[in-house]
Amino acid sequence: MNIGIDIMGGDFAPAATISGAINARKELPKSDHIFLFGDKDIILEGLAAEKADPAGFEIIHAEETIGMGEHPTKAISQKPNSSISIGFKFLKKNKIDAFTGAGNTGAMLVGSIFSVNTIQGVIRPCITSTIPKENGNVGILLDVGAVPDCRPDVLYQFGILGSLYAQYVYNIKNPRVALLNIGEEEEKGNLLTQSTYRLMKDTKDFNFVGNVEGRDLFADTADVIVCDGFSGNIALKQIEEIGRMMIRRGFSDNFLKRLNYELYGGTPILGINSTVMIAHGISSATAIKNMILLAKDVHKAKLSKKIRTAMAHYINAREKEISS
Amino acid sequence: MNIGIDIMGGDFAPAATISGAINARKELPKSDHIFLFGDKDIILEGLAAEKADPAGFEIIHAEETIGMGEHPTKAISQKPNSSISIGFKFLKKNKIDAFTGAGNTGAMLVGSIFSVNTIQGVIRPCITSTIPKENGNVGILLDVGAVPDCRPDVLYQFGILGSLYAQYVYNIKNPRVALLNIGEEEEKGNLLTQSTYRLMKDTKDFNFVGNVEGRDLFADTADVIVCDGFSGNIALKQIEEIGRMMIRRGFSDNFLKRLNYELYGGTPILGINSTVMIAHGISSATAIKNMILLAKDVHKAKLSKKIRTAMAHYINAREKEISS
Repeated sequence: MNIGIDIMGGDFAPAATISGAINARKELPKSDHIFLFGDKDIILEGLAAEKADPAGFEIIHAEETIGMGEHPTKAISQKPNSSISIGFKFLKKNKIDAFTGAGNTGAMLVGSIFSVNTIQGVIRPCITSTIPKENGNVGILLDVGAVPDCRPDVLYQFGILGSLYAQYVYNIKNPRVALLNIGEEEEKGNLLTQSTYRLMKDTKDFNFVGNVEGRDLFADTADVIVCDGFSGNIALKQIEEIGRMMIRRGFSDNFLKRLNYELYGGTPILGINSTVMIAHGISSATAIKNMILLAKDVHKAKLSKKIRTAMAHYINAREKEISS
Repeated sequence: MNIGIDIMGGDFAPAATISGAINARKELPKSDHIFLFGDKDIILEGLAAEKADPAGFEIIHAEETIGMGEHPTKAISQKPNSSISIGFKFLKKNKIDAFTGAGNTGAMLVGSIFSVNTIQGVIRPCITSTIPKENGNVGILLDVGAVPDCRPDVLYQFGILGSLYAQYVYNIKNPRVALLNIGEEEEKGNLLTQSTYRLMKDTKDFNFVGNVEGRDLFADTADVIVCDGFSGNIALKQIEEIGRMMIRRGFSDNFLKRLNYELYGGTPILGINSTVMIAHGISSATAIKNMILLAKDVHKAKLSKKIRTAMAHYINAREKEISS
């Protein structure tokens, strides 16, 4: 397969992105090609500095770069020659099978929707985070920032998206999907979670197991935890800080090591017609490498196709409800 | 002063509440009286079991008990002889200066509002949590569950309430008030935080220092962090779980020890015309003792009076805005 990486994106780009691509190259078979999008001179210089052979990569020159602080929609439309814009053109034309980047998250989201489109029926694409469980398993938290304001039907769809992701990429059978809430009982919560619970409680679209609370994020009571992008982002950044704080305080064990976001590297944008991975702005070379490798897993799992099938089923069921 | 405690409230009541009251008794001067509300036989039995002299307490018999799972408004109106209801009657008549309890939080909130009323101008009373900073200081997070759905003006008022609490109970001069958000920049957030930022940014009612993120909860960048009760409850329960998890994993240091909620014991309900403290359902005797001692601090600080003065000023300023 062909995997693209935005070399210009991220706080430590291009050093971290070039290094990450070189390390991913070493782990992938020759049948996989890595496309580097960015300033050609910078890329060649970076490869030379690490004594990597440029022939191992497809280098796609991009004159412009979208900065971390730029307005996503404006940047995508005003910078057609940026590394992100060119990457998405390649994705749209199937010259690459997956596009990855640690740059401007909003621009990666907007670029995805403009180039390969949202899957029919998906109200809002979203992003996830992998949360290590204390018992060694992993859980999926979504959304973690793409959709700060959610409606109940949007959260319901996150249940479908997260369940498919856990099933096909993390090989979890019949994933347990929970709703992040401020109490275990059905009637607890804010207006959003109270309404969402009512939508989810008898669903056959996924295996709903009820509410979980902030204390349950590391417990193995659910495989997928659904929340609005505001709460999810607060929870995720808190978890990441625990990891850093424990390192600072000199504490380490197998579980605490797994709190390190670098291990997971990135998240697919769920609900679009292709494989697009985004990573933290602060991504290191290790995080970038892992994002590229995860892109392959997501592509191989045919996740977009699985979501398209599920959403067709979802639309069909809603239409039947309306006409009955 | 006279401090009341609901002996029947909490997962470990009456053992933990009686024990906590006995220990608080030892630390308070004789001029402070502790009123125990609950079943007289149970209380006398509990005191005897710990070899405590009943003469050291005012025992107020209550025939009924409000359970943890009962509907707050219904329970308060249908159980006038419950320990919570009688406690609030004593508070209303100034027979006690503060009422404390670890029972049904909703019933404690409703009881407060019914008996001593919300301070004029306060839209929604709220509850707080003390969050230890990594550098040894403490911060205040509010709301942590009383108001799961907030409007921007409600969050704005939490800024006033939290600032006064930090100033007069924790002796923090000119407390730095921040808004919990998913980005540092003004335009980041959900609709609620975006609007709240605009209300707060030029305020003279408190010292607003901008947005903080989930990673900043333990950093000393703000003394007071304002959020809706949904996000705040998720964040708080996550913090408490970190504390328990680190103990489980065998890690301990001065900071981690301070994550133990027992140290802080309880929170005042901010925005009502008296001192009412509530604590975790899982409160131990230590937590109960600390809640009773904190009730004294809150009462001595004349926090309700300070809030009344600030709210009168707030209403006055809003009226001037409208008429100008």
